[in-house]
Amino acid sequence: MKLFNKVAIIGTGLIGGSMGLAMKRKGLVVRIIGLSRHRETLSQAKRIHAIDEGAQDINAIRDADLVIFATPVNTILKMAPLVSRIVNKNCIISDVGSTKEKIAAQLSRQFPNYVGTHPLAGSEKRSIAYASPMLFKNSLCIITPIAKTDKLALDRIVKLWRQMGARVVFLSPKAHDRILSMASHLPHVSSFSLMNTLPRNYLKFSGGGLKDATRIAASDAQLWADIFLSNRKNITEAINLFQANLSKIKLAIRQGNRKELFLLLKKAKQKREILNSLR
Amino acid sequence: MKLFNKVAIIGTGLIGGSMGLAMKRKGLVVRIIGLSRHRETLSQAKRIHAIDEGAQDINAIRDADLVIFATPVNTILKMAPLVSRIVNKNCIISDVGSTKEKIAAQLSRQFPNYVGTHPLAGSEKRSIAYASPMLFKNSLCIITPIAKTDKLALDRIVKLWRQMGARVVFLSPKAHDRILSMASHLPHVSSFSLMNTLPRNYLKFSGGGLKDATRIAASDAQLWADIFLSNRKNITEAINLFQANLSKIKLAIRQGNRKELFLLLKKAKQKREILNSLR
Repeated sequence: MKLFNKVAIIGTGLIGGSMGLAMKRKGLVVRIIGLSRHRETLSQAKRIHAIDEGAQDINAIRDADLVIFATPVNTILKMAPLVSRIVNKNCIISDVGSTKEKIAAQLSRQFPNYVGTHPLAGSEKRSIAYASPMLFKNSLCIITPIAKTDKLALDRIVKLWRQMGARVVFLSPKAHDRILSMASHLPHVSSFSLMNTLPRNYLKFSGGGLKDATRIAASDAQLWADIFLSNRKNITEAINLFQANLSKIKLAIRQGNRKELFLLLKKAKQKREILNSLR
Repeated sequence: MKLFNKVAIIGTGLIGGSMGLAMKRKGLVVRIIGLSRHRETLSQAKRIHAIDEGAQDINAIRDADLVIFATPVNTILKMAPLVSRIVNKNCIISDVGSTKEKIAAQLSRQFPNYVGTHPLAGSEKRSIAYASPMLFKNSLCIITPIAKTDKLALDRIVKLWRQMGARVVFLSPKAHDRILSMASHLPHVSSFSLMNTLPRNYLKFSGGGLKDATRIAASDAQLWADIFLSNRKNITEAINLFQANLSKIKLAIRQGNRKELFLLLKKAKQKREILNSLR
């Protein structure tokens, strides 16, 4: 079943490339145009059939009926005005940005048919080299409609994600950014900070614990600086709470309060086991 | 080549059980006695041939020429006096405890042939059910001799670990505890604290990042309370440094200082990539 005729994916990295692969495998679209600043990325995307055609000129999106922003948050905000002058009125606009309040506020002003999404399927590995048509299979895709979101556009975006294998949930942009500041942004802050704390000559004594706890510190620095700055207030509050919880454990250790320390660790372990049991 | 005649492993969990399996597979010992408070653990250890014989009575270790403490730190400290009244003078005593200063201080007083070790091969999964003869293959085993450590006993313990597949490195107990407070204990504190920060109803929005960053929060609460309390000063200092590094990122976010934030994340990413390139 074709859901769209001509889809333009702006940014053919891990997420954009995987969307192209998934849409083509499921036969959801007639034609996919990929846009990137990097010629090599476009060649690779075309070679693996994630896109039918690559373009570096934004005018190539002119007659698309779906445009998906799959770039870092800041680039979405910067490119949207330009895109709004090119696409026609009926074109559906979507994005996969990691924060949603700023993007929803701006893009819903600039486009009559904007629907925000955030597929929770990234990784510290970026680029088209890691793209897979199965990336979204059984993953969660958060869709963030607002009051004025067009219902038909929303329906088609929901269908698209379900067809690509994702489980769809709805959150307001505000709730999305608050929840993700805890569930995704804070663990990234924690991982980056752990690496900044560890002396370089201690690295060789790392076990699997440190490695897992800091895997996401290998994530792209520019991308994450962008995410953090687009969700300042929530992340600042999350870090404050985290520091308070670190202080509780620190106090129990310093005071030799075994009972309190055990309870704090036990509570964490029980919550972590819920996480294991999900999905 | 037989290195030992009768080995007693006190605590037949993940590490003790895996040592038994590795020693038997390599034919390093004539006979292994396993000790545990739990009859079922002993049956299971015997069934998978990690031990030749199980015992709940400590007197079973009487004529061993090697006794290995493979229990949590606190249990090692509590059981050592009892063991010292049973074994003969020539018996080599070793342990695999996660912190070394307290244990080395006490056990080197109580035994003439004590050699401390810490194989970096644990996991959040405990118990004999996860034991494997390959657990130590290519892993790091830290050996912590002190000035009065018997050279012949040290040689035999080094041989034992190398034969089980581990790469052996030497640290003083003091250096061990300082380094591990950063490379292992701090990531555990961080993981436990992340889980304590995250509201329960946010758990379903977790991606791979949070899951990896908190895998070790599923570790045994009693075991880790023990470890933290046996390395109080180092861990308290490590948490202080970590909180300061969190505050640096927090400040850059709050001030919207993109340049500073980018540099902090970039520095972390570069160090994390060194970690990837090791081993």
